[in-house]
Amino acid sequence: MVSYKAPLNDIRFVLYELLDYETTIAALPGYEEATRDVVDAVLDEAARFCETELLPLNGPGDAEGCTFEDGTVRTPLGFKEAYRHFIKAGWTGLACDTQYGGQGLPNVLQFVLEELIWSTNLSFGIYPGLSHAGSHALALHGSEDQKRLFLPRIVDGTWSATMCLTEPQCGTDLGLVRTRAEPKGGSTYKITGTKIFISAGEHDLTENIVHMVLARLPGAPSGTRGLSLFIVPKFLVKPDGTLGTHNRVSCSSIEQKMGIKASSTCTLNFEGAEGYLVGKPNTGMHCMFTMMNTARLAIGLQGLGLAETAYQSAVAYARERLQGRSLSGSKFPDKAADPIIVHPDVRKNLLTARAYNQGARALALWVGMAMDVAVKHPDPARGIEAEDLVALMTPIIKAFVTDYGFEATNLGLQVFGGYGYIRDSGMEQLVRDARIAQIYEGTNGLQALDLVGRKLPQDSGRLLRRFFHPVSQFIDENTGDAELQPFVLPLAKAFARLQQATLWVAQESLKDGQEAGAAACDYLRMFALVALAYMWARTAKVAVGKLAAEKESFYRAKLATANFYMTRVLPQTSGLFAAITAGARSIMDVHEEWF
Amino acid sequence: MVSYKAPLNDIRFVLYELLDYETTIAALPGYEEATRDVVDAVLDEAARFCETELLPLNGPGDAEGCTFEDGTVRTPLGFKEAYRHFIKAGWTGLACDTQYGGQGLPNVLQFVLEELIWSTNLSFGIYPGLSHAGSHALALHGSEDQKRLFLPRIVDGTWSATMCLTEPQCGTDLGLVRTRAEPKGGSTYKITGTKIFISAGEHDLTENIVHMVLARLPGAPSGTRGLSLFIVPKFLVKPDGTLGTHNRVSCSSIEQKMGIKASSTCTLNFEGAEGYLVGKPNTGMHCMFTMMNTARLAIGLQGLGLAETAYQSAVAYARERLQGRSLSGSKFPDKAADPIIVHPDVRKNLLTARAYNQGARALALWVGMAMDVAVKHPDPARGIEAEDLVALMTPIIKAFVTDYGFEATNLGLQVFGGYGYIRDSGMEQLVRDARIAQIYEGTNGLQALDLVGRKLPQDSGRLLRRFFHPVSQFIDENTGDAELQPFVLPLAKAFARLQQATLWVAQESLKDGQEAGAAACDYLRMFALVALAYMWARTAKVAVGKLAAEKESFYRAKLATANFYMTRVLPQTSGLFAAITAGARSIMDVHEEWF
Repeated sequence: MVSYKAPLNDIRFVLYELLDYETTIAALPGYEEATRDVVDAVLDEAARFCETELLPLNGPGDAEGCTFEDGTVRTPLGFKEAYRHFIKAGWTGLACDTQYGGQGLPNVLQFVLEELIWSTNLSFGIYPGLSHAGSHALALHGSEDQKRLFLPRIVDGTWSATMCLTEPQCGTDLGLVRTRAEPKGGSTYKITGTKIFISAGEHDLTENIVHMVLARLPGAPSGTRGLSLFIVPKFLVKPDGTLGTHNRVSCSSIEQKMGIKASSTCTLNFEGAEGYLVGKPNTGMHCMFTMMNTARLAIGLQGLGLAETAYQSAVAYARERLQGRSLSGSKFPDKAADPIIVHPDVRKNLLTARAYNQGARALALWVGMAMDVAVKHPDPARGIEAEDLVALMTPIIKAFVTDYGFEATNLGLQVFGGYGYIRDSGMEQLVRDARIAQIYEGTNGLQALDLVGRKLPQDSGRLLRRFFHPVSQFIDENTGDAELQPFVLPLAKAFARLQQATLWVAQESLKDGQEAGAAACDYLRMFALVALAYMWARTAKVAVGKLAAEKESFYRAKLATANFYMTRVLPQTSGLFAAITAGARSIMDVHEEWF
Repeated sequence: MVSYKAPLNDIRFVLYELLDYETTIAALPGYEEATRDVVDAVLDEAARFCETELLPLNGPGDAEGCTFEDGTVRTPLGFKEAYRHFIKAGWTGLACDTQYGGQGLPNVLQFVLEELIWSTNLSFGIYPGLSHAGSHALALHGSEDQKRLFLPRIVDGTWSATMCLTEPQCGTDLGLVRTRAEPKGGSTYKITGTKIFISAGEHDLTENIVHMVLARLPGAPSGTRGLSLFIVPKFLVKPDGTLGTHNRVSCSSIEQKMGIKASSTCTLNFEGAEGYLVGKPNTGMHCMFTMMNTARLAIGLQGLGLAETAYQSAVAYARERLQGRSLSGSKFPDKAADPIIVHPDVRKNLLTARAYNQGARALALWVGMAMDVAVKHPDPARGIEAEDLVALMTPIIKAFVTDYGFEATNLGLQVFGGYGYIRDSGMEQLVRDARIAQIYEGTNGLQALDLVGRKLPQDSGRLLRRFFHPVSQFIDENTGDAELQPFVLPLAKAFARLQQATLWVAQESLKDGQEAGAAACDYLRMFALVALAYMWARTAKVAVGKLAAEKESFYRAKLATANFYMTRVLPQTSGLFAAITAGARSIMDVHEEWF
């Protein structure tokens, strides 16, 4: 069985000590009520809910899966009740606008909540997770009527939302979307087409499902410039908000998948369904990216959430399982064998997961706070700076955190040995569930292209500077500090290499677009490893200053993990640098028929 | 659906052109009949059998799984018939002694056969695979009577064998085995205990199952020195070879697992079962290692087999799937989009798997041939040299090939995007099946300890020299060849670093045993990457010499893949070197309660 307690100590450390939540976020206009006391209460209650309501349903939900019969989908036993409790507690509206019934709390708390949900029941979390992405797009791009009619019910969770993008012939390449929208007068359209792989496309948790559908208007330009976004509710909604007849959209099947089996993945057929245009015609990609970016960050957190559960479970198992003796002499001569946590390789696996998790949590919450600053900061320049950082970091968090999330769940499984491969251990489910996050909402290869092809060159590297400047500054300010040398020096060295790699990619891409594509994934990983090194160096600085404090062992553990990260994880960057600067030729010179 | 054709062109290249099968193996006394014609016929027939009989059962076998009822296990539909055909064709006895009904062909052909089986149906292959390991131990350590009674039926496949090592309280640490053996007179004993995770422990494919059981004699020393190996047949065997009554061994359950679902994984209860001592009392570990080493090499090949199928399937999909446009301008302007094989990152994933697979195949068949030389070479010194190489390379092939096998099946899944996560694609099964190979027959962490703690120091590095000498010699001989520079120089650089790392590990381990443990996994991977670089440099040398030949594109593809390996894969070694030489402190200084 997996072992999990919400890592509130670490979350509080990151919020209050590392990132200075109180002056950075709680001081923003509009967040006056999001005091530390309020945040602490939210954290405690989120932890309780996830640990006691969601975690117990995770294994059984995987075993039972969703059931499809005659166009309807049944979620596993217990999901409906848990969802009722979930929305009753107001979790769906945590960071939503109070105008539509949300609690109006900072987005960074939504990040924390999501981590805890993904840790305890990824499949469950996908249902409200998509609603969150959909409501975000609707809030930004919908008309007043649309917002009034749909948002309050999505925010309170009695309805859910979906993102209907993929079709059989198009996943990554949305320019190939064929679903059509024919005008019926006003903002009403007839939507016809087939959408596949639609998460939460049909289920039994909510009274209505609001599909956000990418489709093409008559005469629209080809490719992505001809896409528009439509609201297509499962049940039509009368002007007074009550439900009308079933719209002409139906679920024809659900997928049998490797994991997230309790999350329904649907094929939806739109057969002249009534839909409502969101925003202007042919601006669908723009509206869609609002949803998509929200979803991408959430999915990055899925990697963290699953890896945290894997880490905690593996630590618990490694303390219990007796096998072999320490290489430096028996630690427990009275027992039949030592617990396997004495073995260097087991510790290395645990520390790798720990260093990734705590580093990624710090990075993600830094970005989560930047989202709040972007929306609420009274100085527009500071708002744009924060928005830039979010834009830059979105592909990095989505791709790197889900990549290492898959690695870390596998490290956890490995610590369990043969038991980890058995379903009852719960460990193999974490691995299967983690695998999808590298694929959906834009494969990790696409994220890397987004970073290298779009975010880096944007405005002559303006976005990039939002990360490079604070790192440079931190290194300059702390290079002279003897106690911080073991953290600042490796960071400085890896950062210098990242700057070199950045220059290389920028220059070579100008000569040949293939170079950017060939470098992209390795570059993104290198960037992420340096970003984590930055968070670990900052963490070390905070920890060094608190060693005399009462929770000394907490800070000692932080320093030990930072040290492990710098010496055993960060060196990956040297191989990545060599691979990046080796260039595209060894990849592109291979004739297609040679494969 | 997965796409697979046995890679006979590459196998023939490795056997005949790279490793000179005809002078190295076919010239050995006892292998006179294993001519190239015979080998070619075996390869063709093995390919046909695996492609047409095993592959079609792989997906359905996974979906159906094994069924347990009242102590009996039913394999999935079609397995019994396929197994009948398998043994009728003589595949179980391919490399077994003719004295017991085997075909007496070289072991390297057994390696080739296994790769093809693992590629097409890993679960199926586990049944005869264990028989092969068991019969090997019996042939080397059994008495004449035991061999006469059991071997012919295991070799012809009408009976199968198992390896019964693991118990609830002991997996890696066999010193904790509790199963007891009480003398009943002669070589007969009463075996009592519980064994878990026993692959093929119970099934419906054979008339009898011969369990090879580790147990402890009364008064035996504690730990591994007190273990003995016993034959415990499911049905007792009369002196004339016919079956008697059911022995007191029963299967109480089978495991629900992440993968290899068509392979039964059993809990076996021995309740005073009749067993026969193999070899001398308390030499069980020695006898067991004969089985284990055979099994470890076979399991390394599982990684290769699955990765090959993933690679071929991903190539086929990447050629068909239209999505996006080439970064250097559309390649197929008449189509809705370009096939995704034009994209650098897709190609990088494919080439990574290809470079690993072809490199690992060359390495594995080199070791497979060394096994034949070890047994058959008339010069005992040459035999010992070959045996040393096999001993050195066994943990490397087991651990590295299964590690990259898991990586490569995941790369293949990633090329499929969302489709790869759907069960019907067959790709996610390859990933689930590949995961176990990193665990069973000794976790990959244990393999690394075997390499660093046992194989390296043995006889002052004698085993190590069996690999280091030929590599040094190859580098010396080819450094001056301008055409080979792109291959020999990176090899030389990485090899020099491996030598440095070896010295570092040897010296530091003398001071502190923890250093070996902390370095082990990274060191094994580094070693393996250099070993593959050596095989790729040798491959390049052969290919350069044949560019004018008729199959020019085959050799050009070899050179291109070698170049990719050197520039984009081998650089991993620099990060590994840094991690290894960072030492154990950052791992061992972490207090247990800090985790």
